Amino acid sequence: MKSHTYYHYFNTRTKREFIRITDLVEEQIRESGVKEGFCLVSAMHITAAVYVNDDEPGLFRDIEEWLQKLAPEGPNYHHHQTGETNGDAHLKNLLMHHQVILPVTNGRLDLGPWQQIFYAEFDGKRKKRMIIKVIGE
Amino acid sequence: MKSHTYYHYFNTRTKREFIRITDLVEEQIRESGVKEGFCLVSAMHITAAVYVNDDEPGLFRDIEEWLQKLAPEGPNYHHHQTGETNGDAHLKNLLMHHQVILPVTNGRLDLGPWQQIFYAEFDGKRKKRMIIKVIGE
Amino acid sequence: MKSHTYYHYFNTRTKREFIRITDLVEEQIRESGVKEGFCLVSAMHITAAVYVNDDEPGLFRDIEEWLQKLAPEGPNYHHHQTGETNGDAHLKNLLMHHQVILPVTNGRLDLGPWQQIFYAEFDGKRKKRMIIKVIGE
Repeated sequence: MKSHTYYHYFNTRTKREFIRITDLVEEQIRESGVKEGFCLVSAMHITAAVYVNDDEPGLFRDIEEWLQKLAPEGPNYHHHQTGETNGDAHLKNLLMHHQVILPVTNGRLDLGPWQQIFYAEFDGKRKKRMIIKVIGE
Repeated sequence: MKSHTYYHYFNTRTKREFIRITDLVEEQIRESGVKEGFCLVSAMHITAAVYVNDDEPGLFRDIEEWLQKLAPEGPNYHHHQTGETNGDAHLKNLLMHHQVILPVTNGRLDLGPWQQIFYAEFDGKRKKRMIIKVIGE
Repeated sequence: MKSHTYYHYFNTRTKREFIRITDLVEEQIRESGVKEGFCLVSAMHITAAVYVNDDEPGLFRDIEEWLQKLAPEGPNYHHHQTGETNGDAHLKNLLMHHQVILPVTNGRLDLGPWQQIFYAEFDGKRKKRMIIKVIGE
């Protein structure tokens, strides 16, 4: 069994941002030498997400507006009694999830034609880390 | 390490549909010869989900009504400026997620007594693909 | 390839409860002898979740209030025609998801500084089961 671990850092200019990482993940799969296996892509913070969907700017706006509706920013979180102000970002993380597992087949990401991988930042403007880990043969 | 990859196609008669796929997944695990490992079941489209829950018709209606409430159909998605009309199906996919990872133990799906695996279509009436991939030993 | 499977039982005193399980998972990773691989932690019931987020009591209250808002308790679920009364717990499970996949690096859980693993019970006061499965080398 082969395994390969890579850490990637983000430092977004805005609080919320959607970053396409498909090529970055593909590159680490090549690096791993794994032909058949799984690739885990996981945010190492609790206010960011990793997800698979369409690379379409209108959809990014839809997703952001949707997340603001279901997990709104605002002062009324118990979590804010700790001095934090990012209660909404924790809930956005739970809604979108922090990880995906991707199939690796013939040494390539085995995704459908419209599937792209994204890192979604919900509390940015600071250094955040993400792990890409490939296991297989 | 063994690996086994299988692609399954759906072409639902209705726009939204819940399809139980537990037996299909179990069959591919047998096919793989894997005794101990993981099985990934993942939609290869961005408007369908794979999830684990109860096989109960009343619950399917509850889930559909719930998804319509939290991610409603309608004209007001930025994504629709591309000519698409399925903005809601993208959000339903994000809410339900496109994949599950299942434990394989003693050559069997290692699920609880009520856990069944489902493919949930949110934008059907056309050919859609799903991957089942098993790795282990 | 090594694999290790462990079942853990919960019997919560209250209907809903958040239980930190990071140490329990770390212990099973040590037990497995796996240095590089993946660890699956998955509820074996359809009314409980496993998730990764912050270990902060205010946030537990925020999450519970949020779940009650998005997937409220109440009599109006079709599922209740079966005699069940836990329709909301099924939807809470779908929202939070029943599983996480965790990276194992150098024989340790490879998590960020604030990432803690939780079992979230939504229909407790009875025996429930969770699986921890590690594969790797």
